[in-house]
Amino acid sequence: MQRAQLDGLRFDDRGLIPVVVQDADDGDVLMVAWMNRESLEATLEERRTVFWSRSRQELWRKGATSGHVQHVEELRADCDGDTLLVRVHQVGAACHTGERSCFFRSVS
Amino acid sequence: MQRAQLDGLRFDDRGLIPVVVQDADDGDVLMVAWMNRESLEATLEERRTVFWSRSRQELWRKGATSGHVQHVEELRADCDGDTLLVRVHQVGAACHTGERSCFFRSVS
Repeated sequence: MQRAQLDGLRFDDRGLIPVVVQDADDGDVLMVAWMNRESLEATLEERRTVFWSRSRQELWRKGATSGHVQHVEELRADCDGDTLLVRVHQVGAACHTGERSCFFRSVS
Repeated sequence: MQRAQLDGLRFDDRGLIPVVVQDADDGDVLMVAWMNRESLEATLEERRTVFWSRSRQELWRKGATSGHVQHVEELRADCDGDTLLVRVHQVGAACHTGERSCFFRSVS
C-alpha cells in the first residue's frame, strides 16, 4: 500500500477503522476487528493481520498465542475509505470460542 | 429475531452496531453500514435492510430512491454480539458509485 493510499483512509475520532476479515478461499466472513494506523502498517509489513484491541488498548497480533494467524492475501478499502476488507488465509479458527467464524449465531 | 436476542446485542455509545452486508449468492462483501435498534427492528420486520445514516442522522431505507434494495436472507451476530452480518439478495448495485460492491478499491 502506498503512503498516499493510507492517507486517503478515514480513521474515526478514536483513530480507528473497522476491518472485515474474509476467508480468501471460501468467502466466509470470519470476524470484524479494528485497526489504527500503526496496526495497519504492521499488517502490511508482516502480511498477517495485526489489530488494535479496544478492550486491552494495545496492538493485537492475531494468532500470537493461539497460532491462529491470518495470512493476508489482499486488502481493500470501501468507496469512502472508512472501512477495510482484508482477505486472508486463516490458520485454524478465527474465533476465540474455537468456531471457525465469529458469526456462528444465526439470529433470524 | 426474538426480543431476547435483540437484547443480547451490544450497541456502542452512540446506540449503533456495525453491519457487514454479504451477497447471499456469491459471498461477496458488498458494504458495511450501521444500524440502531429502530433500524434493526425495521430490517427484521420488512426483510430488507434499513440502516442508520450517520451523516444524515436518519433512518436509511437502502434502495428507497435507487431501487437497489437488499432483501434479507439471514441475519447473524458475532460471538460477543457487537457486530452483525446480514446475507442479502442484492437488487442492482450496492454501492452509490454504481459498483456492485463498495470494496472495489484494492489497496495492496
